[in-house]
Amino acid sequence: MNIVLDCFGGDLCPDSAVEGAIQAVGEIEDLKVTLCGDENVIAQILKDKVYDKDKIALLNASEVITNDDAPVMAIRRKKDSSMVVALKALANGDFDGMVSSGNTGALLVGATLLVKLIDGVQRASLSPLLPTIYDDKNTILVDGGANVDCKASMLKEFAIMGSAYMSAVKGVENPKVALLNNGAEEEKGNALTKEAHALLKQTDVNFIGNIEARDLLFGVADVIVADGFDGNMCLKTAEGMGKAVFTLLKEFIMKGGLRAKLGYLLLKPSLRKLKKIMSSDSVGGGVFLGVKKVVVKAHGASNALAFKNALIRAYEMSKADLPSKIAGALAKEAGNI
Amino acid sequence: MNIVLDCFGGDLCPDSAVEGAIQAVGEIEDLKVTLCGDENVIAQILKDKVYDKDKIALLNASEVITNDDAPVMAIRRKKDSSMVVALKALANGDFDGMVSSGNTGALLVGATLLVKLIDGVQRASLSPLLPTIYDDKNTILVDGGANVDCKASMLKEFAIMGSAYMSAVKGVENPKVALLNNGAEEEKGNALTKEAHALLKQTDVNFIGNIEARDLLFGVADVIVADGFDGNMCLKTAEGMGKAVFTLLKEFIMKGGLRAKLGYLLLKPSLRKLKKIMSSDSVGGGVFLGVKKVVVKAHGASNALAFKNALIRAYEMSKADLPSKIAGALAKEAGNI
Repeated sequence: MNIVLDCFGGDLCPDSAVEGAIQAVGEIEDLKVTLCGDENVIAQILKDKVYDKDKIALLNASEVITNDDAPVMAIRRKKDSSMVVALKALANGDFDGMVSSGNTGALLVGATLLVKLIDGVQRASLSPLLPTIYDDKNTILVDGGANVDCKASMLKEFAIMGSAYMSAVKGVENPKVALLNNGAEEEKGNALTKEAHALLKQTDVNFIGNIEARDLLFGVADVIVADGFDGNMCLKTAEGMGKAVFTLLKEFIMKGGLRAKLGYLLLKPSLRKLKKIMSSDSVGGGVFLGVKKVVVKAHGASNALAFKNALIRAYEMSKADLPSKIAGALAKEAGNI
Repeated sequence: MNIVLDCFGGDLCPDSAVEGAIQAVGEIEDLKVTLCGDENVIAQILKDKVYDKDKIALLNASEVITNDDAPVMAIRRKKDSSMVVALKALANGDFDGMVSSGNTGALLVGATLLVKLIDGVQRASLSPLLPTIYDDKNTILVDGGANVDCKASMLKEFAIMGSAYMSAVKGVENPKVALLNNGAEEEKGNALTKEAHALLKQTDVNFIGNIEARDLLFGVADVIVADGFDGNMCLKTAEGMGKAVFTLLKEFIMKGGLRAKLGYLLLKPSLRKLKKIMSSDSVGGGVFLGVKKVVVKAHGASNALAFKNALIRAYEMSKADLPSKIAGALAKEAGNI
């Protein structure tokens, strides 16, 4: 497996990207990573590192797409940017997958225009893997924010794609698919979720019905389907709650005197575990579902660990041949109706 | 001020409702509460209590609307239910306001059909007061779940009503109003929020622009305007996160040996404060905005404290003559455009 890594565009780039790649190839036997970006800068970082030279290669690109760039313009104009060069090489079949921590909108537009969508997919989704209260269980949220104003037929595609991901990549048998809604009962919902509920009942996916946002982290479903606007509300509320919890706890400990401070010291390892689960590192960006090749979005503030995890995720998706599995599932579903 | 209290329909009713009323009239000089429901049952509870008999009255009603009842049917058919009897008495001018912990949908329908909406209001909103990380600051969320598939013009009304609430009831000068959105930038949003953003800019309210869900609890705005579906996503995600945090923390403490357990004991008062802020008791249902009289929804699991707080909230709203203030603000706005 050969994954191309856009080494520019993230907050801690390129150092963290390069370091993450070295860690990833050290961990996985049959993984090669090609570092895309200014080769002089990257070579300079690599100079002092110890790594297997057969498993790291370079692909030169002179420009960088930043978060201030307008997505469509950036993809069209910055033809020698690390993102566009990597996407084109991926589209040409030079690589099995790609990872980028750059401008999310540009990556979505670039993946759609240059790598193209799987037949039958209206829009690619950006899907984060949510942590749950169970160590060994994740839930994929399709869509986490890429597409607002979704049609019900798009939510149906999201369900099929998310189900294919959990089954092919995560080995979940007959993944449970739920629809994010304002009530668990079938008759609850807005116009979109009511229509989507009816459509989902007719598909081959293991549709278990509506799920309320309060159950997101409790591992009730393997796949949660949502309009990207709603998915975004949930992700960002959770992020804000995590921040609020630790802000308040810190304040209470400061005000709580010696007793609270001692308690904090003793409880620190447990609180650290909690913080880790609730941090964006564990969610770690998301995967684009619906694109003809594997594209993984690492979050903008990715450190080396986050890049390593994103590369491993791309490796697993490529190894499982996910785009073909999604294409197959969509074709099968189309034949059914 | 005379508030009518629907003593049936909540999980801990009627005991907690009666006890909450006794506490409320004990705390507020010029507050009377009329307890609505089966007068034999209520009299039985009152029998052993110590309270000011001039400040508590009874209003008999023989039926109860439950959470299993369909809202419109319940209001039409259960004419002698505690909720309908209380609403009708409120509409007739017998009371200054009403509190109920019963079926939310039925209360919304009943308030709309029996008490009626203020001129110029398309739909009543159900608005919870959110806690923030600052002790003395709340944010009102309009709408928290009553109305899905909102039109932009409804969001405009929500903004005006929420602003009137924070100004008249909470004494906030020129309340800051923000629109819940998937990005802070003006050009971000779905079709609804983009249209609403443009409308809000033309109003007299102090519109500060879009707010992301991650900032809900950070006191950035006094009023947050949202479609009820989106508001519901945020409220329920926050609720679920709170539950997940304490579930995980408990697990880590159990697994963390003596050290963690000792740390927990020392930190217990701080954690209890945190839990209190994050519990639904502090949010405590919400107020209906847009109805001709004051109607407060206490949450379904209200205990005596929650009922007391809901009664005080209804008292404050009646005292501030909120429905007139809202009517005035809407009329002024209508003249402006």
